[in-house]
Amino acid sequence: MSLSADSLRPYIREIADFPKPGILFRDIVPLLGNGQALHDTAALIAQRAQANGAEALVGIEARGFLFGCAAAALAKMPFVPLRKPGKLPGETISAQYSLEYGVDALEAPKDGLKPGAKVALIDDLIATGGTAQAGVQLIRDLGAEPTVGIFVVELTGLGGREAVEAAGMKVESLLVYDE
Amino acid sequence: MSLSADSLRPYIREIADFPKPGILFRDIVPLLGNGQALHDTAALIAQRAQANGAEALVGIEARGFLFGCAAAALAKMPFVPLRKPGKLPGETISAQYSLEYGVDALEAPKDGLKPGAKVALIDDLIATGGTAQAGVQLIRDLGAEPTVGIFVVELTGLGGREAVEAAGMKVESLLVYDE
Repeated sequence: MSLSADSLRPYIREIADFPKPGILFRDIVPLLGNGQALHDTAALIAQRAQANGAEALVGIEARGFLFGCAAAALAKMPFVPLRKPGKLPGETISAQYSLEYGVDALEAPKDGLKPGAKVALIDDLIATGGTAQAGVQLIRDLGAEPTVGIFVVELTGLGGREAVEAAGMKVESLLVYDE
Repeated sequence: MSLSADSLRPYIREIADFPKPGILFRDIVPLLGNGQALHDTAALIAQRAQANGAEALVGIEARGFLFGCAAAALAKMPFVPLRKPGKLPGETISAQYSLEYGVDALEAPKDGLKPGAKVALIDDLIATGGTAQAGVQLIRDLGAEPTVGIFVVELTGLGGREAVEAAGMKVESLLVYDE
């Protein structure tokens, strides 16, 4: 049976003024809370990763862990977590990205990806694309190839898709919202 | 085909002195990085949840998201994230737990579970059981029934199993390590 991403739209809840006034938050909790919708989301991500030739998935802490690891388990593909600083044991590499005020960073396990492997980056949402760009850098610094970024929700008008494509990675989203 | 949890043991890496001197850390990164082992871990968790009658899974941020959500997606079961304070939008409930120094808390979506539902709590590791006990409290405060806690790695000798069982929830682990 062919899955439709649009069938997932009713499971995204809009919450006004979170995490601060003026922001309309797209909440994935209802999507996680429906077993069939959760399965279908993970299956769609896995399908799109494989259609783009990906051999491994990376997911960004913490909501990217939910969908990225579920898709990897369904497809029996390797999963690599990109974590906040200090959380990963062993040798790591790091990439910084800009926040509204200041900078933050993501870390990856130094031996996390096979050199030359095609990799799909998974996160729940793309807005400005800052964390995704850091993910692209980490995949490259590990010697692998960032092939596609797959996002459950894309908010247009904030430059995320354009920034990630300029960094050399294709963008695919299951659900697009015009802000 | 019947899955064996012991087949997963080679994918747990031991890292000395992380996150601090004297601690032998059990690292799940190699387990995540093998697609078949990751799938089998999620399948074993789902099997054990269903064998205990669970109708929904909850996972603890952040590593519990990896295995809990993967198991839920495989089994088409609802998944509820238990998050660090301030991360969940909408109405939440909270439970505190003790750290070595001070306290931390977990939050759950207020409408996250059906009243009376049997629930399995998923995390990567049980050591002292502090976060799992907070999870038991949150499941009960949501009106549901904490049926079983399923952990990929159990470290014995730190009282975690005993504390969680005393709180009224069964404990099952895929891999047990004597500390």
